[in-house]
Amino acid sequence: MSTICAISTAPGTGGIAVIRISGKEAFALTDQIFQPNKQAIPVKKQLAYTLSYGKIYKGDELLDEVVAAVFRAPNSFTGEDTVEITCHGSTYIQQEILRLLVEKGCTLARPGEFTQRAFLNRKMDLSQAEAVADVIASSSAAAHRLAMNQMRGGFSHELMLLRTQLVDFVSLIELELDFGEEDVEFADRSRLSALASQIETVLIRLVESFKVGNVIKNGIPVVIVGETNAGKSTLLNHLLNEEKAIVSDIHGTTRDAIEDIINIQGMMFRFIDTAGIRDTSDAIENLGIERTFQKIDQAAIVIWMIDTTHYSKEIEFIADQIIPRTQSKKLLIVINKIDKLTPEEQAVLDEEFLPYVPSERIYLSAKYKTNTDMLEKALLKAADLPEINGQDVIVSNLRHYEALSYALEAIRRAAKGLQTGLPSDFISQDIRECMHYLGEITGEITTDEVLGNIFGRFCIGK
Amino acid sequence: MSTICAISTAPGTGGIAVIRISGKEAFALTDQIFQPNKQAIPVKKQLAYTLSYGKIYKGDELLDEVVAAVFRAPNSFTGEDTVEITCHGSTYIQQEILRLLVEKGCTLARPGEFTQRAFLNRKMDLSQAEAVADVIASSSAAAHRLAMNQMRGGFSHELMLLRTQLVDFVSLIELELDFGEEDVEFADRSRLSALASQIETVLIRLVESFKVGNVIKNGIPVVIVGETNAGKSTLLNHLLNEEKAIVSDIHGTTRDAIEDIINIQGMMFRFIDTAGIRDTSDAIENLGIERTFQKIDQAAIVIWMIDTTHYSKEIEFIADQIIPRTQSKKLLIVINKIDKLTPEEQAVLDEEFLPYVPSERIYLSAKYKTNTDMLEKALLKAADLPEINGQDVIVSNLRHYEALSYALEAIRRAAKGLQTGLPSDFISQDIRECMHYLGEITGEITTDEVLGNIFGRFCIGK
Repeated sequence: MSTICAISTAPGTGGIAVIRISGKEAFALTDQIFQPNKQAIPVKKQLAYTLSYGKIYKGDELLDEVVAAVFRAPNSFTGEDTVEITCHGSTYIQQEILRLLVEKGCTLARPGEFTQRAFLNRKMDLSQAEAVADVIASSSAAAHRLAMNQMRGGFSHELMLLRTQLVDFVSLIELELDFGEEDVEFADRSRLSALASQIETVLIRLVESFKVGNVIKNGIPVVIVGETNAGKSTLLNHLLNEEKAIVSDIHGTTRDAIEDIINIQGMMFRFIDTAGIRDTSDAIENLGIERTFQKIDQAAIVIWMIDTTHYSKEIEFIADQIIPRTQSKKLLIVINKIDKLTPEEQAVLDEEFLPYVPSERIYLSAKYKTNTDMLEKALLKAADLPEINGQDVIVSNLRHYEALSYALEAIRRAAKGLQTGLPSDFISQDIRECMHYLGEITGEITTDEVLGNIFGRFCIGK
Repeated sequence: MSTICAISTAPGTGGIAVIRISGKEAFALTDQIFQPNKQAIPVKKQLAYTLSYGKIYKGDELLDEVVAAVFRAPNSFTGEDTVEITCHGSTYIQQEILRLLVEKGCTLARPGEFTQRAFLNRKMDLSQAEAVADVIASSSAAAHRLAMNQMRGGFSHELMLLRTQLVDFVSLIELELDFGEEDVEFADRSRLSALASQIETVLIRLVESFKVGNVIKNGIPVVIVGETNAGKSTLLNHLLNEEKAIVSDIHGTTRDAIEDIINIQGMMFRFIDTAGIRDTSDAIENLGIERTFQKIDQAAIVIWMIDTTHYSKEIEFIADQIIPRTQSKKLLIVINKIDKLTPEEQAVLDEEFLPYVPSERIYLSAKYKTNTDMLEKALLKAADLPEINGQDVIVSNLRHYEALSYALEAIRRAAKGLQTGLPSDFISQDIRECMHYLGEITGEITTDEVLGNIFGRFCIGK
């Protein structure tokens, strides 16, 4: 296996940057471009977990003064000999050091290749390796906690144990089959039934946790609907400005679709844009409105925003459209622009229009930020996610969710087969299928294609 | 002095990130949030230049698994006790670790504060400290070489030596003044004259080197002029695409004005945008054209781009405008779109129009990238900068240039005073002024304001 190198810190200019080199030739290759300062010894002879100051030369020219950190196999992230060179953070220096390493025979690392090697060298199983990317991409406390838990082992130990027990049973069953007509029974059917039921319970719990895990990882989908001038964008900008730093960070990540993601007390809300519902009767039927309704279907929380100074004559009609569509969702009614009317004026308008609107309402002014904290509280309450702690096992990875779902189906078939006295070879086949999917999660069973898909989504340098 | 911390790697999400902590309490503060893995010892007791694996906790919750590198005063970048924590590169983790450190009593570092401390702790002089920022901002081989040379000491050792000799002389002269009427002469005037002349020579060399240094650091200003459809932007895009990575990096830095910077074989060319010269006679006089001519004044190289399929009837007039304005510059004549005409057609057109245009011409097709390499070669030749090597002393910092210019004026006045037999107190004053400016460069003389200006331009974390 080749020795690989990459810039492991964020791309661009920084105070310092770290270049990671991993593989059998990591020390020898580094020593070709790195000259330790007088007292120091070559990297090859440097003790594990030590640093040495030195210089990187490009021919005769001093390229940079750097620090080299040495990790010796198997005690490194990848499990291989590894050097981490900390250099000055200009992109020029970073690129030149990489170029020098490649010149000497190093290979540029593919995305996720360091983590892939950690997996191949059994430093972690596949679900843990996948969590490394999730840890790096996490931008909220909850998502971070989830990813961290998964990286530390999560449910994979439990799955591996269950799978091992299945392996034992399936061997016994298949041994029975070898005896053909003799009608022996090595595998204790009642114990196998108990195991199948235990596995079913675990899998149901994990599959169901995905609903929460997915929302934590990707944010809770929220749609704001309302007429064009109701103040939707003012409200959104206000919420966004509160969390500008986090939002701009998210925009830099590799999420597929860039939406407005707002972090409220560590919980991520993903705001889905909608065209305003225009307040003319003929527009109600138009395509834009239809799309808004489709977006309501994708949301977990719907904010219906109403301009208190300008109630639509169509409010009854709009209510008839929105309310039935949000039965299985949380609907928050926001009455905006309370700064524009006196309480008396508002009361008059409310009386005429609000009978059509559900009674739990938040009165606010998006422009003057009055009561917007109440909306934030209502969003958190509507999110209604269980408190996650380090012990909770929650699935947030779509690949795991799918494999778990297939494993659950298979073990259910096996359990049913045991009940109905299905021939052993059918039961054996179902158990093998369940084992296959469990093994795919932890990486005991894998293909190059699966690995390519998983690590191809990583960033380079990790 | 407080203990400071900052993210030292480039902002954003990366595989890993490094948080630097420097100051008296660096070890004690780190130990409050960092739990080394079983065999390891607290950071406080960790040997210098060693790494330890461990965990960062946020209360009871595991925030991240990290590596802590220990540097002990005075053997660190800042000269203080320093810890570098390498964590997973999510912005969430980076921010949370900073937050934990601040909670425990750490102060967020101001821009450049680590380097400022290195200067205050005499790890480097001021001109070297300034070069740290230049090293990080360098995006071409030449600029890097210059900054690296300056960071390694550059001319500051020479200046300090000369300044020390001046100090000795000025003490002797001032001793004479103490003796008032007695007309003693402690300072050997001929040796002082020789020193002044030696200093003058050094300063002239340094002041003159700024012309080269500035161009290397900021790029050689190039203006492309020509009619609107001559293909200027096609050419520029082509040149830019060749160096896309470097260009996009530059856009991320803190340069004041973003222009198109193209790196050709390690030499930076700064392309200044101009409005096209429109081919109607009345447009010749308009304001846009005037601005183009102003931009020619700022350029060192002017590319006059002519569309071979569409010579302007105004070519004689345009030539009359451009040629006199480029007498002290390099003028490159580019005849574009040679793909559109047969050689015969082109010859006919050339005969009519080109008598007005200087004879050294580059015929190319920007669209099909034919002969664009010839233009690159011509640009490099026109740049005509001396080859820089590690030994050359070149000033690229405007502050240094100004201080050197003032020092040169002062030493010239002193030399002239010695020749004309000016009273000693005048000479003493001129020498003191020269000393002052030399001291400002190396930081022997400095004010909080100067330091604030210098380090305020650094990035945070360096």
